[in-house]
Amino acid sequence: MLANLPVSGERLWASIMEMARIGPGRAGGSNRQALTDADGEARHLLRRWCEALGLEMTVDRVGNMAFLRPGADPSLPPVAFGSHLDTQPTGGRFDGVLGVLAGLEVMRALDDSGTVTRAPLMLVNWTNEEGARFSPPMMGSGVAMGLFDEAEVLARTDASGAVFGEELARIGWRGEADPAMFQRLGAYFELHIEQGPFLEAEGAEIGVVTGASAQAWFEVTVTGAEAHAGNGMALRRDALVAAAQMIVAIEGIAHETGGNGTVGRIVVSPDSRNVVPGSVWFTVDLRHASAATLARMEAMLRDRLRALAAARRVLPAITPFWSFPETPFDPVLVARVREAAIARGLTWREMPTGIGHDAVYLARRVPTAMIFCPCHGGLSHNEAESITQAWAEAGCRVLADAVLATAGLA
Amino acid sequence: MLANLPVSGERLWASIMEMARIGPGRAGGSNRQALTDADGEARHLLRRWCEALGLEMTVDRVGNMAFLRPGADPSLPPVAFGSHLDTQPTGGRFDGVLGVLAGLEVMRALDDSGTVTRAPLMLVNWTNEEGARFSPPMMGSGVAMGLFDEAEVLARTDASGAVFGEELARIGWRGEADPAMFQRLGAYFELHIEQGPFLEAEGAEIGVVTGASAQAWFEVTVTGAEAHAGNGMALRRDALVAAAQMIVAIEGIAHETGGNGTVGRIVVSPDSRNVVPGSVWFTVDLRHASAATLARMEAMLRDRLRALAAARRVLPAITPFWSFPETPFDPVLVARVREAAIARGLTWREMPTGIGHDAVYLARRVPTAMIFCPCHGGLSHNEAESITQAWAEAGCRVLADAVLATAGLA
Repeated sequence: MLANLPVSGERLWASIMEMARIGPGRAGGSNRQALTDADGEARHLLRRWCEALGLEMTVDRVGNMAFLRPGADPSLPPVAFGSHLDTQPTGGRFDGVLGVLAGLEVMRALDDSGTVTRAPLMLVNWTNEEGARFSPPMMGSGVAMGLFDEAEVLARTDASGAVFGEELARIGWRGEADPAMFQRLGAYFELHIEQGPFLEAEGAEIGVVTGASAQAWFEVTVTGAEAHAGNGMALRRDALVAAAQMIVAIEGIAHETGGNGTVGRIVVSPDSRNVVPGSVWFTVDLRHASAATLARMEAMLRDRLRALAAARRVLPAITPFWSFPETPFDPVLVARVREAAIARGLTWREMPTGIGHDAVYLARRVPTAMIFCPCHGGLSHNEAESITQAWAEAGCRVLADAVLATAGLA
Repeated sequence: MLANLPVSGERLWASIMEMARIGPGRAGGSNRQALTDADGEARHLLRRWCEALGLEMTVDRVGNMAFLRPGADPSLPPVAFGSHLDTQPTGGRFDGVLGVLAGLEVMRALDDSGTVTRAPLMLVNWTNEEGARFSPPMMGSGVAMGLFDEAEVLARTDASGAVFGEELARIGWRGEADPAMFQRLGAYFELHIEQGPFLEAEGAEIGVVTGASAQAWFEVTVTGAEAHAGNGMALRRDALVAAAQMIVAIEGIAHETGGNGTVGRIVVSPDSRNVVPGSVWFTVDLRHASAATLARMEAMLRDRLRALAAARRVLPAITPFWSFPETPFDPVLVARVREAAIARGLTWREMPTGIGHDAVYLARRVPTAMIFCPCHGGLSHNEAESITQAWAEAGCRVLADAVLATAGLA
């Protein structure tokens, strides 16, 4: 171990609770949507905390905030870490916030101990990760990595017609730096709550995230024949019973391949209690850590839906809707996270993330790794989202260790 | 055979086509909703046709129209037959209309041949069978049989707020007779298109309807746990996959019992592509000709849904929504229909009706039977609804024979 930084779980927890006072939700969570007054206020609080440590702030043209701590060798690219302070309208206190304030705690512990790293360090707060008010999500990191067009992002509007760029200026956080500066980072680490139930269920304290799952989304339309429910069963071509068999089959594909399969929306027509459905539309969301296996899942989807449709004399139409490539994290950085968990004697497991994070966009341009911290019941995007101080501290210690192992000591 | 009335399939067909000119649909069908100007005009046409035969018209307070042909024995209760002239907004030319105009054709053939029956005969056009504009359906026959409250029916409003009683008066068809007069009928016959595919599929020309199925409608709510679709499958409590298995099971119950089972509506929450559904609501419509078997179907529904829910760790709530009793038709009148089909050398099958008809309400108070005529592809409540002239004529001949066998000859 390079150094045992005096990371304080209590101080981290107190900062999370102080941040939660800004944009409080109605049920104990947070409503601090991107580019609202609350977002602006949260940014000011982070700035005050960072300036107290002497960190130098840079804000880019889409509002991404960077706080730099010089290293002994200014020629090295910075080792960055962070997450986001914006929340869902009925969000929790920890989604995003944990990663930013754990990064702040790392900076404080470095300051307390007078530690100097070889590479510079950078704490980042990405703009509009949630995408709740302005879509799509992960906007700040998407622009920074050159995946989204900056002008288009600045022109996005919310439901009320408010313009992203104008709102950013209104709250005082439209900076002048080029977002592309983040593409020159040496590494990026992000600590985040799992937003799933597996770590808690297995009693693991650390999720060592190996990369982001590939995703393939589809729309399926099943066309049968509308009929009066008073007629017997023999000649029916019921689109809903066919769709129901397909939904069960999709779950089977996910189980067989170790991937995820979700049908989240379904619309039946004509949607009448006593009419056999003539057509059904539903969505399919397939995910797998391996793009090759995801392709196999898609082939299974097509084969099984067609076979089920043929057996029931209905017509299936399967249309790709959206896809997202497999995004492996950097093996060296992932190993540093794993080694930190092992060295600290923490229980851990490796896992892909099926959920989007700023780190997933960062990984397209910059060596990246993520650390997951358990959350109760897998609950997230919900005011009842909760974690323990011990989990937060464990995640923060692993973050600190992985960052120091990467930046090196002077 | 009592008499071979000179029933004319051509004249019947021509009358159906003439009636279809009133309230034409956009796609070759009819839009002659209850108490619209088109309904009023259709009633005038029927009146002119009946008055040309010297039939005496009586209109009751909810607009039911009766045309009486005296019998040799005025002390006998009338033998009635008919159906309805109102249509769905995108209805066909035959649903209801066939029964009324086949009855007219019987009256015309009696007139042509100078036949006098022992019992009086009555042709009836029931008000608002469809229930499309003013719900519920079968309003006129429901009031006549004392099943609906007359004042409540007169106060019903359509989507625009127009009041049933006022609309009935506006089109000039609010009569003065007591609707309860129809409870003193000696018999009621109704010829109707099947609105199902079975007669055509089996090559049968006549459906001998034995009664109306008992119906039991339910609402089911399945409560699981909402989760991000990016999480793995192991700990999911997906309400939609559970509901899908239930929908397949409901079809199984119908097949096993020889009844009908239909899920016509389904609503998923939170209805997002990448969120595992936390709850699903769907409707169930179970029907069987035997109320005892229907009760067994309901028990199977409860058992199987609970077992599926328990296996998937979701909670099911099954709530009765509506039910309709088993309504057997009069065995003597049903036999007369069957015997007429046999005597005419027509192919026939016995079947219950799972679909509501005025005859089903009549059967609660008056000896009743129904005759089904095939329709192409089982298509109905659709402008493309179609039948052949030969089918219409066969149904009309069986109606005539069954009516004469019941009323007797003078």
